[in-house]
Amino acid sequence: MRIGVLGGGQLGRMMALAGYPLGLQLRFFDRAPDAPAGQVAECVTAAFDDLDALGRFASGLDLVTYEFENVPVSAAQYLTGRVHHFFPPPRALEIAQDRYVQKRFFEEIGVPTSVFRPVSTRAELASALEATGLPAVLKTRHWGYDGKGQFVLRESADLDRAWKTLGASPLILENFVRFRRELSLIAARSVTGDAVFYPLTENHHRDGILRLSLAPAPGASAALQERAQSCAEKIFGALDYAGVLTLEMFEADGQLLANEMATRVHNSGHWTIEGAETSQFENHLRAITGLPLGSTETRGCAAMVNFIGSLPEAAEALAIPGAHLHVYGKQPNHRRKLGHATLCAAEWQTLDASLNRVLRLAGMSAPQHTSL
Amino acid sequence: MRIGVLGGGQLGRMMALAGYPLGLQLRFFDRAPDAPAGQVAECVTAAFDDLDALGRFASGLDLVTYEFENVPVSAAQYLTGRVHHFFPPPRALEIAQDRYVQKRFFEEIGVPTSVFRPVSTRAELASALEATGLPAVLKTRHWGYDGKGQFVLRESADLDRAWKTLGASPLILENFVRFRRELSLIAARSVTGDAVFYPLTENHHRDGILRLSLAPAPGASAALQERAQSCAEKIFGALDYAGVLTLEMFEADGQLLANEMATRVHNSGHWTIEGAETSQFENHLRAITGLPLGSTETRGCAAMVNFIGSLPEAAEALAIPGAHLHVYGKQPNHRRKLGHATLCAAEWQTLDASLNRVLRLAGMSAPQHTSL
Repeated sequence: MRIGVLGGGQLGRMMALAGYPLGLQLRFFDRAPDAPAGQVAECVTAAFDDLDALGRFASGLDLVTYEFENVPVSAAQYLTGRVHHFFPPPRALEIAQDRYVQKRFFEEIGVPTSVFRPVSTRAELASALEATGLPAVLKTRHWGYDGKGQFVLRESADLDRAWKTLGASPLILENFVRFRRELSLIAARSVTGDAVFYPLTENHHRDGILRLSLAPAPGASAALQERAQSCAEKIFGALDYAGVLTLEMFEADGQLLANEMATRVHNSGHWTIEGAETSQFENHLRAITGLPLGSTETRGCAAMVNFIGSLPEAAEALAIPGAHLHVYGKQPNHRRKLGHATLCAAEWQTLDASLNRVLRLAGMSAPQHTSL
Repeated sequence: MRIGVLGGGQLGRMMALAGYPLGLQLRFFDRAPDAPAGQVAECVTAAFDDLDALGRFASGLDLVTYEFENVPVSAAQYLTGRVHHFFPPPRALEIAQDRYVQKRFFEEIGVPTSVFRPVSTRAELASALEATGLPAVLKTRHWGYDGKGQFVLRESADLDRAWKTLGASPLILENFVRFRRELSLIAARSVTGDAVFYPLTENHHRDGILRLSLAPAPGASAALQERAQSCAEKIFGALDYAGVLTLEMFEADGQLLANEMATRVHNSGHWTIEGAETSQFENHLRAITGLPLGSTETRGCAAMVNFIGSLPEAAEALAIPGAHLHVYGKQPNHRRKLGHATLCAAEWQTLDASLNRVLRLAGMSAPQHTSL
């Protein structure tokens, strides 16, 4: 089975490396000539509206998937006419690309989420604020990632600045959830309908960028896991989904509120490469090709630390007991994810000293609200 | 650091996949245009005596290593003049390529091995037989692998046939060791002198080809492990070795006798990909680049089964709980290693049912002398 992947970033790169042992050779499509996946696999370099290039990319493929959700839906639709399968379904992509549509979708299928209102005018913002109360978060509906296109309103006076900053785009206002922590669920559903779920992951962000993931989320109860899985199952069912799905959630007052979904493999699932019996990348490929899904059982506890903006010396990272290094082959750049390290151990305590060393290498101190 | 690898078989392919996460892109050299490593990385296709091609291959490389030991020493020597480093050292390659030189080397450095004599004439064979006694094994000194170039002499009458079959080549006669089982030790030594050792692996062959590896070798005592490690340390020291070394041994009457060494990563170490904290492939790369060596701790028990001559359906293999599939991208061919599956579990008992299913897929029944 010949598989094409839209996007050739580090997620694609790790997917390519997961594909080879299964005998799957992936072909990528990316705008950047130095895309990380292009260093380890075939890659067509062109813009996503270049139909000729998309046609070349699709030639001979049985199946197309994607590794970032900002693929224009038009490109997805063009490709569905040219290959036998496009997974996850274009409808999932469409929903994931619009925060408002996504929240409406959550509401419709019974996935708990925060209070939200669409905002397209200054007046709508004011009335939306009455529904959500303060504090609230104003977000662009489209193309937001890593905390971009967001503005937190703490008092009425912030309204003007928020509008000036983001008012040019279609927006959504959400009540600000005072969460205890952020959790994500990585789940995979096969074209056959089978589904598997990884244990909940606890995520720590800084400046809107994921810095640290801990899995299984310390202290997460079986009931919490059950509730998260039931949300994912609703999404799976509603979209006749195939592939990996990531559901980002807030845990607040023992409740789970869906924040957003990514219809793809996800940074908060990188720990599965060493920390689980089967990685999210392998399970994504198994899911979309109809191969039996792999076990999501963990190998103890795992911590994943992102390297943002700069990479540590490999020798320094690998000198840390239990550290597994992943370098993405990207040019260093402020706020850019250049690599990550994963630590695994039977217990959190065993992992603690190494984790502190990796965090220091990543320019982080141990997170204040860590649940360890 | 730019690394070149002589040979582009499945060992090279798995080495390439281990290199990418470390940010290492390997360049391969192989005679076959469809070499497995060439499907996942850059590969120069030419004969090993093509000095122009070797020069092109070496251009811009800091370091050359190899993944099969039948590299002509002349090619290794040519390359040592062109790149800064060649690991494992050419002297190790030279020794590994001649069974007699190898046994002499074992003897010199105090690594126990079987009784052996060099044989180049019919008369020498007769007198060698007096030294070894019957049964004995006559082997070609060079280019033997997977049981090729071997003849077992059970009675004096076999002498003629043995000589007719192999007499054209330089030979070695060894006494036939009535071993309880075959074990291998995978060890890695860094250019810095640090060394790590995986636990002993129990190996089962059929028709001279490895079919099944079990690790850690069931029931192997700490003392046995110690003894094997001390053999590897002697080899490391004598050769100022860098890289992974595989030592194949017989366990007989509680003794360990070195059968042969492979100065490279090895089929009996494939289980380390999922079964150990760091794979043999990653540790080989770390060793030759001077990166800190990774932990060789196991994740419970592992069983590795080779697929010879034909591959099972991926869906069938992946339906087996805990099975990890590795496909090499080779054309099917009688006696050819086309892929393998590894199973991991906390205990052998848990693994048993799955192992029997994988063995059936591989056309094997459970080995008679299994120590499980």
